[in-house]
Amino acid sequence: MHLGVCYYPEHWPQERWKTDARMMREAGLARVRIGEFAWSRIESEPGRYDWQWLDDAVDVLHEAGLGIIMGTPTATPPKWLVDSMPDMVALDRQGRLRGFGSRRHYCFSHAGYREQAARITRAVAERYGEHPGIVSWQTDNEYGCHDTVQSFSPAARDAFRLWLNERYGDITALNEAWGNVFWSMEYRGFDEVELPNLTATEANPAHWLAFRRFSSDQVIAFNQMQVEILREFSPGRDITHNAMGFYTGYDHHDLASDLDVLGWDSYPLGFLEMFRFSDQEKLHFARQGQPDIAAFHHDLYRGCAKDERWSVLEQQPGPVNWARHNPAPLDGMVALWTLEAMAHGAELVSYFRWRQAPFAQEQMHAGLLRPDGEPAPALGEAQHAADIVAQLGNVGQPVRQAAVVFSYDSEWITQIQPQGEGLSALWAVFDSYRALRKLGLNVDIVPPHADISPYALVVIPCLPIVPETLAASLESFEGQVIVGPRTGSRTIDFRIPDELPPGPLQSTMPVKVTRSESLRPGLEHAGDGWAIARWLDHVEGTMEAELVAKDGAVASWRAGSRRYLATWPLGAVLDEVTSRAVSEAELRAIELPDGLRVRRTAKYTFVFNYSSHKVAIPEAIAGAPITGLRELAPARYAVFAAD
Amino acid sequence: MHLGVCYYPEHWPQERWKTDARMMREAGLARVRIGEFAWSRIESEPGRYDWQWLDDAVDVLHEAGLGIIMGTPTATPPKWLVDSMPDMVALDRQGRLRGFGSRRHYCFSHAGYREQAARITRAVAERYGEHPGIVSWQTDNEYGCHDTVQSFSPAARDAFRLWLNERYGDITALNEAWGNVFWSMEYRGFDEVELPNLTATEANPAHWLAFRRFSSDQVIAFNQMQVEILREFSPGRDITHNAMGFYTGYDHHDLASDLDVLGWDSYPLGFLEMFRFSDQEKLHFARQGQPDIAAFHHDLYRGCAKDERWSVLEQQPGPVNWARHNPAPLDGMVALWTLEAMAHGAELVSYFRWRQAPFAQEQMHAGLLRPDGEPAPALGEAQHAADIVAQLGNVGQPVRQAAVVFSYDSEWITQIQPQGEGLSALWAVFDSYRALRKLGLNVDIVPPHADISPYALVVIPCLPIVPETLAASLESFEGQVIVGPRTGSRTIDFRIPDELPPGPLQSTMPVKVTRSESLRPGLEHAGDGWAIARWLDHVEGTMEAELVAKDGAVASWRAGSRRYLATWPLGAVLDEVTSRAVSEAELRAIELPDGLRVRRTAKYTFVFNYSSHKVAIPEAIAGAPITGLRELAPARYAVFAAD
Amino acid sequence: MHLGVCYYPEHWPQERWKTDARMMREAGLARVRIGEFAWSRIESEPGRYDWQWLDDAVDVLHEAGLGIIMGTPTATPPKWLVDSMPDMVALDRQGRLRGFGSRRHYCFSHAGYREQAARITRAVAERYGEHPGIVSWQTDNEYGCHDTVQSFSPAARDAFRLWLNERYGDITALNEAWGNVFWSMEYRGFDEVELPNLTATEANPAHWLAFRRFSSDQVIAFNQMQVEILREFSPGRDITHNAMGFYTGYDHHDLASDLDVLGWDSYPLGFLEMFRFSDQEKLHFARQGQPDIAAFHHDLYRGCAKDERWSVLEQQPGPVNWARHNPAPLDGMVALWTLEAMAHGAELVSYFRWRQAPFAQEQMHAGLLRPDGEPAPALGEAQHAADIVAQLGNVGQPVRQAAVVFSYDSEWITQIQPQGEGLSALWAVFDSYRALRKLGLNVDIVPPHADISPYALVVIPCLPIVPETLAASLESFEGQVIVGPRTGSRTIDFRIPDELPPGPLQSTMPVKVTRSESLRPGLEHAGDGWAIARWLDHVEGTMEAELVAKDGAVASWRAGSRRYLATWPLGAVLDEVTSRAVSEAELRAIELPDGLRVRRTAKYTFVFNYSSHKVAIPEAIAGAPITGLRELAPARYAVFAAD
Ligand SMILES: [Zn+2]
Ligand SMILES: [Zn+2]
Ligand SMILES: [Zn+2]
Repeated sequence: MHLGVCYYPEHWPQERWKTDARMMREAGLARVRIGEFAWSRIESEPGRYDWQWLDDAVDVLHEAGLGIIMGTPTATPPKWLVDSMPDMVALDRQGRLRGFGSRRHYCFSHAGYREQAARITRAVAERYGEHPGIVSWQTDNEYGCHDTVQSFSPAARDAFRLWLNERYGDITALNEAWGNVFWSMEYRGFDEVELPNLTATEANPAHWLAFRRFSSDQVIAFNQMQVEILREFSPGRDITHNAMGFYTGYDHHDLASDLDVLGWDSYPLGFLEMFRFSDQEKLHFARQGQPDIAAFHHDLYRGCAKDERWSVLEQQPGPVNWARHNPAPLDGMVALWTLEAMAHGAELVSYFRWRQAPFAQEQMHAGLLRPDGEPAPALGEAQHAADIVAQLGNVGQPVRQAAVVFSYDSEWITQIQPQGEGLSALWAVFDSYRALRKLGLNVDIVPPHADISPYALVVIPCLPIVPETLAASLESFEGQVIVGPRTGSRTIDFRIPDELPPGPLQSTMPVKVTRSESLRPGLEHAGDGWAIARWLDHVEGTMEAELVAKDGAVASWRAGSRRYLATWPLGAVLDEVTSRAVSEAELRAIELPDGLRVRRTAKYTFVFNYSSHKVAIPEAIAGAPITGLRELAPARYAVFAAD
Repeated sequence: MHLGVCYYPEHWPQERWKTDARMMREAGLARVRIGEFAWSRIESEPGRYDWQWLDDAVDVLHEAGLGIIMGTPTATPPKWLVDSMPDMVALDRQGRLRGFGSRRHYCFSHAGYREQAARITRAVAERYGEHPGIVSWQTDNEYGCHDTVQSFSPAARDAFRLWLNERYGDITALNEAWGNVFWSMEYRGFDEVELPNLTATEANPAHWLAFRRFSSDQVIAFNQMQVEILREFSPGRDITHNAMGFYTGYDHHDLASDLDVLGWDSYPLGFLEMFRFSDQEKLHFARQGQPDIAAFHHDLYRGCAKDERWSVLEQQPGPVNWARHNPAPLDGMVALWTLEAMAHGAELVSYFRWRQAPFAQEQMHAGLLRPDGEPAPALGEAQHAADIVAQLGNVGQPVRQAAVVFSYDSEWITQIQPQGEGLSALWAVFDSYRALRKLGLNVDIVPPHADISPYALVVIPCLPIVPETLAASLESFEGQVIVGPRTGSRTIDFRIPDELPPGPLQSTMPVKVTRSESLRPGLEHAGDGWAIARWLDHVEGTMEAELVAKDGAVASWRAGSRRYLATWPLGAVLDEVTSRAVSEAELRAIELPDGLRVRRTAKYTFVFNYSSHKVAIPEAIAGAPITGLRELAPARYAVFAAD
Repeated sequence: MHLGVCYYPEHWPQERWKTDARMMREAGLARVRIGEFAWSRIESEPGRYDWQWLDDAVDVLHEAGLGIIMGTPTATPPKWLVDSMPDMVALDRQGRLRGFGSRRHYCFSHAGYREQAARITRAVAERYGEHPGIVSWQTDNEYGCHDTVQSFSPAARDAFRLWLNERYGDITALNEAWGNVFWSMEYRGFDEVELPNLTATEANPAHWLAFRRFSSDQVIAFNQMQVEILREFSPGRDITHNAMGFYTGYDHHDLASDLDVLGWDSYPLGFLEMFRFSDQEKLHFARQGQPDIAAFHHDLYRGCAKDERWSVLEQQPGPVNWARHNPAPLDGMVALWTLEAMAHGAELVSYFRWRQAPFAQEQMHAGLLRPDGEPAPALGEAQHAADIVAQLGNVGQPVRQAAVVFSYDSEWITQIQPQGEGLSALWAVFDSYRALRKLGLNVDIVPPHADISPYALVVIPCLPIVPETLAASLESFEGQVIVGPRTGSRTIDFRIPDELPPGPLQSTMPVKVTRSESLRPGLEHAGDGWAIARWLDHVEGTMEAELVAKDGAVASWRAGSRRYLATWPLGAVLDEVTSRAVSEAELRAIELPDGLRVRRTAKYTFVFNYSSHKVAIPEAIAGAPITGLRELAPARYAVFAAD
């Protein structure tokens, strides 16, 4: 694994660049990521390119021995470009402009902008495609950041109509598929279809799902356009893009299939603060991050990536500027996060960013250097991590134990139709992942078309659309299976299947869901130390009731190695079902103490302490560590030889 | 009373229709409600009518012995119609389009759409007006659903100006009436008046009240237009419309005066979840509904309806799709709700809907059948209810005990000017109704112009505009009277009356309100087991202080049979004042246990158990029930012969 | 000090005016404020002036012996004027119209409206400029009320571009100053700059700060235009304007420099309800107002005003209409508030308003008279206050003890970039003020350029931009100094200074902030009875740790008479640091009981009881009061001769 850093030479005087490059190397960094917001410096006037400064920067970095990851600058088109075609920006769901003045001010469907993005990509690729310092390319930056995948512009509407025409062929097929007879929503032609926003009340969920798919496809096409240009002008270099945390605006399985390496941007403290963790967790892990956040995304994006090649393109190095509250990580966390990425198989961890810029939107975002150019606390941690990374070398293949199945349309469906406030497929997956991780297991997060044969246990927490391939692979799968609520509950066009949920999975388990309830928080059916909460499926079939509440409501059903969880995968009931299946799968579970997490590779067993107190590593992980202690201080880790 | 069901033949294959009709009859249903969203199937292209399918459906249903309630399809104009006049849709208060893609996408003031609505109404009425299967008509569907009465479109603005001209005659009268000298808001002509939205800060409350009245009048006129056409082409059939729960967007007294029967749509679980009940109540009654929700609307709409003819046009049969959380009713609740409607005098209870559609917006809304065509739990309950309904026959006239006075402009006024956050005339009425119902009383909810002579007690919880007719009938009324805060506090044009509140009621009680305070929750004046909260009127006059807080603040004043409640009608202080007045009215009060409710007719006494535990019926209701037990299980009811 | 009242003769029949004037005089009032919303009555048609009624009103009031404060009517342009140039209204941040129908419906940058405002100002000034009854002028009314300083209209955009051009001279300077290289935000000319709203994600904070400065400058220029006209036509009369509570939309230091007297509008109960006090405080002081609200603004605006000449132009007399909840003040509070303004040096307290209008937006706002013309409770209190005011005469110069430094750009910066949710410079100042006031001290709130030599203690709670003048005056200042977090953390153009925070203050204290954390509520470092919360600066330098938390985190640093507070000025840690500095400053502190407050002038010591229970005045204030008792009932005050 390499370490790297994000760098903006255009922010600093040219005379500083050599010092920076030297300091990077001294800190053990091998990669530097540049260029992705520099359009206005590369082309300050239409067609007037200024390459000199960037040539110089590339040379300085290359000569210092750093491998360069070059970004295309398409996330930040300059003002003159926007002024030349003002309709290139997106409109939000309320119809308001999302104009110039920050970043990501473009609509993916605007043909004119797509041409301009191709032009600048070609210009950069031509200039540096064969430069020996360039080791890989990044397309754009964080597609979808600031909720920018969906655009409600005229350009998007026109493109959506074409996309629908291509998908459905004739309008009767669309009307039939969506059930538009309901409420007289039938169209006579594709040019009658509008975007699903600004309707008097909610639009047809099938309409929304199509729009979500379309919006995702526009991102994929925009990215493909860049990938093709880069492959032409810079053959042999890896192409990557940086995904984000808890983000499902586009289908990452699709995107990754066009990339060599999938990257992501890891901000454990910011994510803890901004996403749906409890206030108690937000306090308990305020300076570490909840212990599954980083690992979840490592495993999610490894599961998306071609050949499981993935990296961390941005690693939080200190306080950030964008969360509601922005504390500093505990001393040691930056190194711990780095080693944890390694344990999950990253190719690269690149810190964001080299030096804190004293101006503009991210002035309160820490770097490895302070704004005054002196080392910030993270620099020493990066250096420490670099030493350990070098010492450990290749970590070997991941150990396969359990798989959790996720598809992006699952989350789109639960967002479009939660049925119970806040119920989310993504978070059902996260919670299922966490339940397994608390037992010390390796968990892969895989798409529905994945090969599940290597696993002893497969969990499908909430997968409304079950492709036939998954139904088929489950039929021949011999391990344990847990299927959660809403799985198999929708056809490809957002209809309830004729045979009722779980649809095609009825071939692998004898269950039919005849009625579903969503339950307000507090409306529970208490069991023995667990409870049915938030959701309850009533079923028919021949499965046996396994977990039965005191009032007779059934939380989970089983038939041999198959379990159907009839309530939302959450809390103690999830832990109970998970541990039963784990035990029958004969996986080596360890009840981990609060904040401890384990990751196993062919060569090593890694143990990480996310808690804010000292924790002894359980005896089940035997022997003396290669690095670290058996009693781990907060924000410390240990590495053992694999047993 | 009849039972019925809502049915969408256009959703299902024609070959299924006969089966459906037979199953309806077997379940004891006599009525079927169809057609109200079928415009795109009736007229798929401008002027091209396709009657065949609907002719067939009507015949199949009629031949099965079902009486048909036919709806006009004006709530869902097809896309081609909207495209032919895009300005027919409403704009919301923020000026945003409320476009096509769901339903109710029209502005009541758009003359072009009103013509088109008349045209389609005439076409349907001509076609089926004399068909023997048609027993009644429903106009449109749920006027105002999704907050669609108020439109801020140019069409609405122009119509508002005409309406004002008609009401005020000259602009000086309007300026004077509204007090437009304040803040230089004076107009020189009606064409200078804008809609009251998008003002720099809040508009004149008189401006808002006029706009609310205008908006209501537009609904009434739209409905009248349809009623006239239906009367012309289908004489002798009843005309109805389905009102909603806790909804005050238009004046239902006005609407009902043009109808033969007023219907409403009863969703006790959805309403509990979505309206302002406490979290505790939402949990306690999650699968039953708070026990006064259904009854309140039965009595409210009976009070609106001509000759007290009313029905339930949609009855919740299971989980719905539109509340924040959507649990299933307890077994038995569907039957209980049905019998309760009977006890309150309904002509019809029609379940919504026959079969759960597996597509579009309401795919998670239960029916009597599941999506796969098999019986859902509610089908059996409907059948049971049909048996009991048949057994009981005519229930006889309601017993008159107490009346609560409500007018729609009361709620408009408290919405426009709450003065204390969340204070609402509608909810003051609901809470007063509940206080009486907990004492086992029959309560009528009546308009200010009602004949109050049959009652022993009249409660006026919050009626800012007191018409002279009410002041006059109170002067000669000999029963007990409770008058609540803000009553008589406004003139017809939203001014404080010269004589101060309670305005014209000073002729019936010697009290003048000189100062009103609104109090934040928690700011209370404690009395003996009760408290002054949320509101406190300071008064002059010769009434005697009846309920005096420990610090001397006066909660209620009395003079003979008249009481003035100087605090908000809420909680223990409301119970205390109510029970004193009930006792002096010599009404037979019963302190009902939690969740039990009673309704008396000339022939029967009905008892309903809304609680989730077993409850013994109080001894005050003596003897053996005709149906049911003296100890009621949850979701069970008993019927006694009237004593 | 004079007492006065706001009066709207145009609301009442002319035959009542004499009665009103007589009653005012009988109540001891000497001033009457009129005219500020009367444009539609002065000029009912374009160019047609109707002066008669206003001439009469002025004469009636003058003849009764009242001095008139005449307002220009520019806050309420009439409809015909708006219709003649519809683009004169502001647009809000979402791009929505802020149209006619209430007040303040104009954009400060609209040249056409500025001309019209000048025209009507000139007309009124010409008419009454030399009238002997006119003692002073008020420009417009409450600039910025209803959030009307910022406008996002085309007029504002164009004016902003000119303003930027004037400030930065060439666009490269602006790009450099703002750091626009970040995210390719560079402009090629001023006409490429947009307003900072409707950007895809947040705009550059430097962009926002410039827009806030520009928006403030537009207010100042609009006011200057009126001031110049008034000085021309009415020389020798004072010119004033009424500022608001907790309001920072424009720079009041700038505005006040063009006025003779700065007024403000004091609504202690409304402000308590609407601003960020705890629920507990909102209940505890519901009918008094939190005891520092009025005093804080008295001292803030005295610090803004030229020669410290200030007044209360609107004093709450009873319940208002605009807060979430609107209780009545305790008996006595109106008099107490009046005397407290006197104690802080007001020239005038003018009650708002004479008689409650029964119509339009403020119909629920109390006056000295009820809507029916009878005395409301406040009339008697005003009369009582008038007697005491007369008895006390001139109160003498304020005693100088401590100063708190505030600048308006401080609050703009923390609003633009809170970094931790809700952190605010204004409230840091308020809390620091309160901490000193609880010790019985006189506190001046001063701008950064103020002369600080008279004070024994200077507190700078949060002043991101530290002008060189302040750094210089601190260098020679010999008293105690407390500097709070974020002070000196930004340059004039919203950049982190090269030398890191506290920037120029490093010349007066040896400290450099190397890292700042913001902490979610609950994430605390406990000390001995205090805690570090919400913010933590990590520092370098040679200051000595003074308050150290149990875990070693440092709350405050000191070096001789200088203290650096490294956490947010809040709660017990603020009290602890404050009381240490106060003690070293040898100021006479008194630990005041709950709700008691003290104010000292050269001649008197005033004591006010804001609590709702009886309180004994501490022995430290010795002797018998001139008025009042040593044991103060709720809402009562005492005045002692100065010791
Ligand atoms: Zn290498
Ligand atoms: Zn019949
Ligand atoms: Zn005087």
